[in-house]
Amino acid sequence: MLKASPLAMVPFVSVDNMMRLVHHIGIETFMSDLAGEIEHDFARWELFDKTPRVGSHSDVGVIELMPTSDGEQYAFKYVNGHPKNMKEGLQTVTAFGVLADVYSGYPKLFSEMTILTALRTGAMSAVATKHLAPKGAKTMAMIGNGAQSEFQCLAIKAVCGIDNIRLYDIDPLATEKCAKNLDGLGFQITKCTSPEEAIEGVEVITVATADKDMQTILTDNMVGSGVHINAIGGDCPGKTELHRDIVARSTVFVEYPPQTRIEGEIQQMPEDHPVTQLWQVINGTAGGRASAHEVTLFDGVGFAIEDFSALRYVHKKIQDTPFYIDFDLIADPDDPRDLFGMIKRAG
Amino acid sequence: MLKASPLAMVPFVSVDNMMRLVHHIGIETFMSDLAGEIEHDFARWELFDKTPRVGSHSDVGVIELMPTSDGEQYAFKYVNGHPKNMKEGLQTVTAFGVLADVYSGYPKLFSEMTILTALRTGAMSAVATKHLAPKGAKTMAMIGNGAQSEFQCLAIKAVCGIDNIRLYDIDPLATEKCAKNLDGLGFQITKCTSPEEAIEGVEVITVATADKDMQTILTDNMVGSGVHINAIGGDCPGKTELHRDIVARSTVFVEYPPQTRIEGEIQQMPEDHPVTQLWQVINGTAGGRASAHEVTLFDGVGFAIEDFSALRYVHKKIQDTPFYIDFDLIADPDDPRDLFGMIKRAG
Repeated sequence: MLKASPLAMVPFVSVDNMMRLVHHIGIETFMSDLAGEIEHDFARWELFDKTPRVGSHSDVGVIELMPTSDGEQYAFKYVNGHPKNMKEGLQTVTAFGVLADVYSGYPKLFSEMTILTALRTGAMSAVATKHLAPKGAKTMAMIGNGAQSEFQCLAIKAVCGIDNIRLYDIDPLATEKCAKNLDGLGFQITKCTSPEEAIEGVEVITVATADKDMQTILTDNMVGSGVHINAIGGDCPGKTELHRDIVARSTVFVEYPPQTRIEGEIQQMPEDHPVTQLWQVINGTAGGRASAHEVTLFDGVGFAIEDFSALRYVHKKIQDTPFYIDFDLIADPDDPRDLFGMIKRAG
Repeated sequence: MLKASPLAMVPFVSVDNMMRLVHHIGIETFMSDLAGEIEHDFARWELFDKTPRVGSHSDVGVIELMPTSDGEQYAFKYVNGHPKNMKEGLQTVTAFGVLADVYSGYPKLFSEMTILTALRTGAMSAVATKHLAPKGAKTMAMIGNGAQSEFQCLAIKAVCGIDNIRLYDIDPLATEKCAKNLDGLGFQITKCTSPEEAIEGVEVITVATADKDMQTILTDNMVGSGVHINAIGGDCPGKTELHRDIVARSTVFVEYPPQTRIEGEIQQMPEDHPVTQLWQVINGTAGGRASAHEVTLFDGVGFAIEDFSALRYVHKKIQDTPFYIDFDLIADPDDPRDLFGMIKRAG
């Protein structure tokens, strides 16, 4: 290989290196750090260039690009959603992303984001729970024990100190898998066989289910006063997790209203259903929980700024580590006008 | 490194490997093949999901995402445009792109596209010239001898047999560079010191200038009847290359009208200025050149389908070659619901 100039190089973080980085930092530290980065970026929300995701839909799934920028750095994520993939031994969701420098337009990080999205989704729920859960919350029901469940539990424990977890899934094997994965990580785990059992006495309910048929698993009369709910599995049009009456009784907090009204639980509600933007709670321009009896609902769908925060964090953390490879992604001729000459001389 | 599953792997083509691939295939063959792929995709234009590019603008430049899909494959390109970069020793335009499978949502190729865009831009002009130039054209003026000029000349020679080239640039050093690069590649080259001299007796004029102040370099009375013009340097709002009167006198051919009306030469014209879509000329549903006296103008701005064609071609051509590396971009746990377990076990 020709000696490429340092300007040509972009650091790449593979799946393997992302796992190494996570273990190097520690998964709970990683997610509580990430929660801090998300809070930092949400607090300066108005600086960001916000675009709804750009989707390409087919009969079997969607491929989306989610760009954003704070004026200094730019990020986008590629993410697919293919529910039928699991049956074929493939991931329902895979993702990768890029962080770039706005001033030069040059990419400065390319990273896998399947794992990173799972981590930031946990961190995001932890941020919401920190700001909205009743004081002194110690117990959480985790409804839906699939790929996202462990990340939710660990992030919320790391950020909010909630370590008593009641697991429930319609598939008992999923609950077994989740319980086994969380074993030895500092939790008290209860495996439940019904949603009623799972939510008994909890202060927080986190729902992360993959199937839209799940939406009646929690009915309104099951949800007690004062709880905080994170609903993070409903994240596309036609996919919701909570009965409409629960949404109606809750105070609803969202990331980016134009996106959540299409993708979130509130797609069941009228277009003007009142919502509070979480960034305003974080920077103090809006109130959060108003009373100990209020049911608060974080209707999370995932927003580009969270990916931006995650990429920014990874970019910081890989400096002076072996957890990336440099890849010559940028053509860098000595004379910028002489791209052809560079190719010719390589012959 | 853990042994990653084949499903986790995505082939990556670096700048170095792209140059190797180009030399392996031969640059003229590469561009005439690419012209064929573009014609193939333009002929089935209506199948494509067409979205205007998604831009993030700053004071000094723009970062754009250009997605498209034919329902079976999906592609997007990241491209920046920063005119001030050259003075700082950086590329004005850098690019990379991804080809993905619509059915699974999985990426199947990640590639540098700074070089690839230069190649496809040449190939695109060659397609337009093939369909619009007067019969038997042998001579071309190449106005603007910067980074794109050699690619234009080689592609048009490879596809249309035009090998008599008259070079002109306001900077004589750029003309020297272009002439030197094309030396020994089968051209008759004339270095000209004025635009009038460059276009004397030519059948084709290709204009690829980087500066918007160039727009008066060709005035209407200089352009003779019957010529074909490729105007490819004007590719963003506020940047045009041709005097309005030339556009007014020409029959205008474009890629995707909603984009060209904002970015192309026709941004100078009324919103309903008549244009013909090149894909219709290619598949025979619209006429091309109507007479030997007509001035035809290809108002090229670059469209996502051309990048799609280019990525599709590279993906085909790298099979069974050493011109890529496999990179574990996809997290592929044995059980798709057990992403966390995969990370835990890697510790």
